[in-house]
Parts: sequence; structure tokens; C-alpha cells
Amino acid sequence: MSAVIAIDPGMVDQHIMELAQFGACAETGVCRTVYSAEWVAAQDHITTWCREAGLSVRQDAVGSVWARLEGSEPGPSIVTGSHIDSQVPGGRYDGVLGVIAGVIALRTLKERFGPPRRTLEAISFCEEEGSRFPATNWWGSRAITAAIGPNDPYEIVSAAGETIAQAMQAVGLDAARIPEAARTDIDTFIELHIEQGPILEHEGLPVGIVKGIPGIRHYLVELVGRTDHAGGVPMDLRRDAMAAAAEIITRAGETARSWGRPAVTTTGRIHVEPNLAAAIPGKVTFTVDARHPDPAKVQELWTGHEALIRSVAAKYDVEASWSLLVDHAPCPSDPGLIDLLETTAREQGIPFHSMYSGGGHDTQQMGLLAKVAMIFVQSKDGRSHTPDEYTTPEHAAAGIQVLTAALHRLAY
Amino acid sequence: MSAVIAIDPGMVDQHIMELAQFGACAETGVCRTVYSAEWVAAQDHITTWCREAGLSVRQDAVGSVWARLEGSEPGPSIVTGSHIDSQVPGGRYDGVLGVIAGVIALRTLKERFGPPRRTLEAISFCEEEGSRFPATNWWGSRAITAAIGPNDPYEIVSAAGETIAQAMQAVGLDAARIPEAARTDIDTFIELHIEQGPILEHEGLPVGIVKGIPGIRHYLVELVGRTDHAGGVPMDLRRDAMAAAAEIITRAGETARSWGRPAVTTTGRIHVEPNLAAAIPGKVTFTVDARHPDPAKVQELWTGHEALIRSVAAKYDVEASWSLLVDHAPCPSDPGLIDLLETTAREQGIPFHSMYSGGGHDTQQMGLLAKVAMIFVQSKDGRSHTPDEYTTPEHAAAGIQVLTAALHRLAY
Repeated sequence: MSAVIAIDPGMVDQHIMELAQFGACAETGVCRTVYSAEWVAAQDHITTWCREAGLSVRQDAVGSVWARLEGSEPGPSIVTGSHIDSQVPGGRYDGVLGVIAGVIALRTLKERFGPPRRTLEAISFCEEEGSRFPATNWWGSRAITAAIGPNDPYEIVSAAGETIAQAMQAVGLDAARIPEAARTDIDTFIELHIEQGPILEHEGLPVGIVKGIPGIRHYLVELVGRTDHAGGVPMDLRRDAMAAAAEIITRAGETARSWGRPAVTTTGRIHVEPNLAAAIPGKVTFTVDARHPDPAKVQELWTGHEALIRSVAAKYDVEASWSLLVDHAPCPSDPGLIDLLETTAREQGIPFHSMYSGGGHDTQQMGLLAKVAMIFVQSKDGRSHTPDEYTTPEHAAAGIQVLTAALHRLAY
Repeated sequence: MSAVIAIDPGMVDQHIMELAQFGACAETGVCRTVYSAEWVAAQDHITTWCREAGLSVRQDAVGSVWARLEGSEPGPSIVTGSHIDSQVPGGRYDGVLGVIAGVIALRTLKERFGPPRRTLEAISFCEEEGSRFPATNWWGSRAITAAIGPNDPYEIVSAAGETIAQAMQAVGLDAARIPEAARTDIDTFIELHIEQGPILEHEGLPVGIVKGIPGIRHYLVELVGRTDHAGGVPMDLRRDAMAAAAEIITRAGETARSWGRPAVTTTGRIHVEPNLAAAIPGKVTFTVDARHPDPAKVQELWTGHEALIRSVAAKYDVEASWSLLVDHAPCPSDPGLIDLLETTAREQGIPFHSMYSGGGHDTQQMGLLAKVAMIFVQSKDGRSHTPDEYTTPEHAAAGIQVLTAALHRLAY
């Protein structure tokens, strides 16, 4: 039985408001892209917090900030953290709350329990959102897993036309040194994050223990039929790409609904040609976003959707093809860590929901070299990637309490 | 038993090629909008043809050209014709083939049978396509039925910014005199037109006898749900406007397919917000084009689609509303005229298909003051409103033969 480790909601809120100043926009929003002046100021501020807490601090080769509480025994680290960058505009909570949680957790543990047995680290990842460089794909965590290709820094270009190597250089980082950020000495990684969905609010619970991150595919489906006069061509002689797309979208959604949580399938984007009221569409391009955290089930979902596209296309006599815009494998949380987090939450008296993530996170990259799990905190109306993001200080503190107590169990 | 009235395909083709010069574009296309220089030249050319044939010719107050073969008995006229304007780009056949048919029919009858008992007229309507002034809605035939409002000429504006009154003035027509174009002395109107669909080609027949023009509604449907994260929000907590739209499109199409010909329903246009792959659409706007030529059936089709929109919207918890962009009543052909045309076709040895029009035509406006029917001729691949339009001279001549022989039965 661990000690109860209370976290002061007011103190958490003060940290959130302090960091929200760096890149403050749109009243309650934050616009803080990687390697911007706001980003530099925010990472510096975090560094100051860590120094004041007596933690050793360093910045790695891609600009992620690491705080360290050295263990008395040798061995790989137990790490927590999240990302400091935001969408444009983003909110005050997505990513940064997990950074704050890590700093508070390490400071609290040091103050209350002194040096740990195993080394603890907290990280503020340089980048996760892809909001400045669309192809970065978790720049901070990919540097750690050595997943950044040697040409990536020179080939990944922002909307403004600069390469990420140039943006790094402007803040004193050398892209040639990226390999130095790689780590192989991390045993465990736990990320705290806002939920990005309404499940916890719907359940009336502050905290979620995340059993896994879904496999995600974005199919870009193209259907080619024949543009015809909407009056002149009878239903039985058409090659209507829109009718085929609508049936695919309807039936793919029905599959996900009939499977129930956590399966999801969404069509968010569609482009129709010629897009005229009285013309049967000859070409329709649309996305199918399909997710499931179970490795076998997600394959079944994807295979089923592909078969559906083929059979509906044949029914409407249209040509179907697709490419994958996104193709991420699922990342199940470590069963031992799930047990630990659930046991810890019960001990701390924090009610929780056992659930899956809906979105992708740095955790799935860290899962390539460490045991991983996540802690979610309730997010008002399930909102994220908007200035409207809001998590109550009490819910944030509850999540940080579970994180801190779990790190205590792991490292002391 | 009427005489066989052979029409020379080569002569028909020559007429088509002569008129195709006025506004020739895109190799085999025609761009000839109302009141343009090309349009003036084309109407002048038709006037010359009529004068050479010994027909009396006049232009009415909106610029439609009327040729007249005076009957020996008093009474209302028997009229044939179609429109001279085109889409941009359009083809060589849509509209103009019916104008040519009228001129050839009257000339042939005059040459072979002399003056008729009842007065025959052929018209080249000034405008039908709405390709220069989107809100004209059959300008030529609406002038004849006195359906043009007194402010219309000054309020209908082209994409280039001029009013239709200004465009009329530029070619010597006075908008204030439009009421003079009205007619109340037309007994019968028969229009020959290319099919604008593939049914005749599919049946391997040159000619269609048209039983009616469909009622047409274009619904503009707006569904409003809630934009959410495609991963974070489970299927059971969504308000997905795209999923609802897809099911409406699918089921409305299924209804039209299960009814069979001539019912059609098409979604040709769709607009999705925010239109991002990983965002559940919060708003979708789309058209539903629904047509049937039977007055009772079309009401049943429209009522059914409206009920479908309501019930699917409720299922997905989205708000549904709609407006009507187009709302045209069906126009059944006169039963006596259908009989006459079918009997005539048999007598002339022209194989035909008894069918419905899919699109709207001047005929439905003329139906407000006369008995009406239409003759279709086969159109290659069912194409229209494109430079690719093509009707063989033989098929065109077959249609003109039926028209000419029918006018002979009616007027001699």
C-alpha cells in the first residue's frame, strides 16, 4: 500500500497558465509550433522549473527537454512526459499538461521521498502535432527511437518553405547531430494526456487508464464511373461514383457501429467531380479513417473495408482504387503497467475508466523501445486542437496524482 | 394511310454543319449564347433558309424566329421547333436539330403537298439553356406563354454583369415589348430533340416517342451535426453529418432503383465541413435531384425522400433542413398526339421506342397553352451539353420523317 500523494489543483492550474503565455492566441488558445520563438521560451521556462526543483536538465539534439532524478541503482530509466508544441490554434492542455505532469511528479517525489532507487526522467518532447512541418510525425520521440532518416531534416519542408534543418539551426540545433538523441536505456514510458474525446465526461470520471492506442489507417479511395445527365440516364444504365461512395461510407460506418467501442470508421473528406446538381458524378475521392486498438481486430476491420470497397464498386460498375495516407500499427499498453496504474488509482482513491485512446500519441513511438501506457484526464466536451480545450484543475490533479504514485511504485 | 415522306440524311447533315459554324468552338463544339453575335448570325441564317423555302418569316419580341406556312382554313396553329442557343461549350445537336427539323419539315410539306389546310409554324426559340443568364428559364417559350414578369428583364443578370434587357437592346430588341411575343392561338406543339440519354442507343432504335417530361425537384439538403475527433469520439456518441448524408443518398437511390424506369434520383453535388480526413463532419450540404413524369408518382417520390431525410437525420442526431433549387411540375404528352406520332412512325416504317424524357424542355412551357409531345432521336453514348454530342444523319432524318409525316396528318 503506497502513501496517498495529494496534488494541489491550484498549483497545477498555475503551471498551465504560466506555460499558456508562450504563444497565447485567440483569448484562450495557444499557437506554439516547433522551433518558434514561443517554443524556445516555453522550453526555457520548463528548464527553469526543473532547475528550481533541483532536477538535472538537458536539451537533446532535436530540442526535447529532459529532467532527471538520478536513481541509487544503475539501470534503464522510467520516463514520463508529453509534447510542448500545439496545433494552430491549439489549446492550453493538449500535450503540455503531460509535460507539466512530469515536472510536478518528479519534483513531488524528490521533495517527499528523496532520491529514488531507479532513475526517473521527465521529457518535454519538441514536437508531436505536425502543425509546422506536416511530415514530422512525432519528431521528438522519433529522434529517441532513431527513426528519423538521414535525409529527413533536409527534405521535410514547412508551408513557409523552410526545411526543418533550417528551423533547427535558427534555434541553435544541428540537424547532423540528431542521431545523438537516440536512447536505448528506457525501461518504461508513461504519458499523461487530455482525452480528446467525450468518454470520461460521459462516464463522469476524472481519469482514464489507457489500454492501448489504435491502429489507424487513412484510406484515400478513388471511384471512377461516368459523368452523365441526371435526367437522361436511367438508374440501371448509370456508373454513378457518388452512389457507390455513399453506400461504402454507409456500410463501413455500420460495421464500426455494429462492432461497438473501440472500433471507429469515419469519412471526413470528400471531393466530387463535376459536382453539379444535375450531373451524375463521374469521379469521387474520399477518405476512410478506420481505427481499432486490437492488432487482429484492426486487420479484420481494414480487410473488411477493402472488400466492401471492391464489392460496392462492382455493384455500381465503377473502378475503385485506394492509397494509404496514414498507416499506423496499434500500440497495446503493457499489461503489467495497466495493472500498476489501475491498482495505483484505486489506492489513491481516484475513480477511473479503463479505456482505449482514439488518437495517436508519442507513446506509440516510445512503445518501440519501452513498456508503455497512458493516463487520460477528462476534457470538457471532448474537445482538443482548439482554444476551447478545457480540463478542470481537479481532474488534471487527479491524473497527476495517479502518475506520481505510479512512478513512486516503480522507482522507489 | 399517309404517304411515305423520305428525308435525305445528307441534306440534314448539311444543315447541321452550316449552323454549327456559328459559334464553332473546341473542334466539334458550339458556343452560342442568347443575343451573342454568333446567335444573331445563326438566327439570320435560319431566316434565310425559310425565305428561300418560300415561308414567311418574322422575329418576335424576344428574338425567336418564326416561319409560317399559312393554312387555307382559319384557326390556331400547329407548331414545331426547338432552341438555337447552346451550353458553353455545347454540341452541334442539342436544340438546333429541332430547329432544323422544323424548317425542313415545313419546306418538304410545302414542296410536296402545297399549302396546308391548317396553319403550320416552325420556331427557333431564342433561349433555353440558361448558359448566359442563369435565371432565364426558357426565355423564348416563356415569352410566348406570357410567363416573363415585368421586372425580369431588368433583374436577370449574366455572370458578366449585364441585364438581359441590356443584352436584348444590343441586338435591337426592346425588353418593354416582350408582352407582344405572347400567343394564344397555338393548338399543338411538337418538339424534336436529341435524347440526352442512352436509352435509344441501348435499345438500338433511331427514334423515341416521348410520353412526358418529368417533374423535377432539386432539393438542397443541409445536415448539421457536430465536428469531432475521428479517433476520440466513439460511434455511439457522434453526430456525424456525413454518415447521415451517405445513408440518405444511398437509400434515396435505392428507392429510385427499386421503382425502375422512369424514376431517377441523383446526388451530384456535396459540400462537407471541415472536410478533413480525421474530423467527423459537422455540416454537410448536398443536392437530391428527383424526377418522375407521372404527377402522382413524382409527388410520392418527393414525399418519400423528405420522410427519408427526416428519419435518417433523427437516427444520426443531426438537424436537417432543405430548400428547393428547382421545382418543375411534370408535363405529360397529349394522349392523342402520342397515338398520332406512334401511328405515323409505324406508317413511315421507322422503328421507335415509347419513352419518357429525362430532362426539361421548352415543350413543358408550351404545354401551358397547347397540346404537346416530343420526338427524340438517338444520341451517341447518350451525350449532350458537350462538343462530343453526335447523332447520325440517318437517325436525325428518321426523326424528321416522323415529324414531317405527323404534321402532314395534322395540317393537311
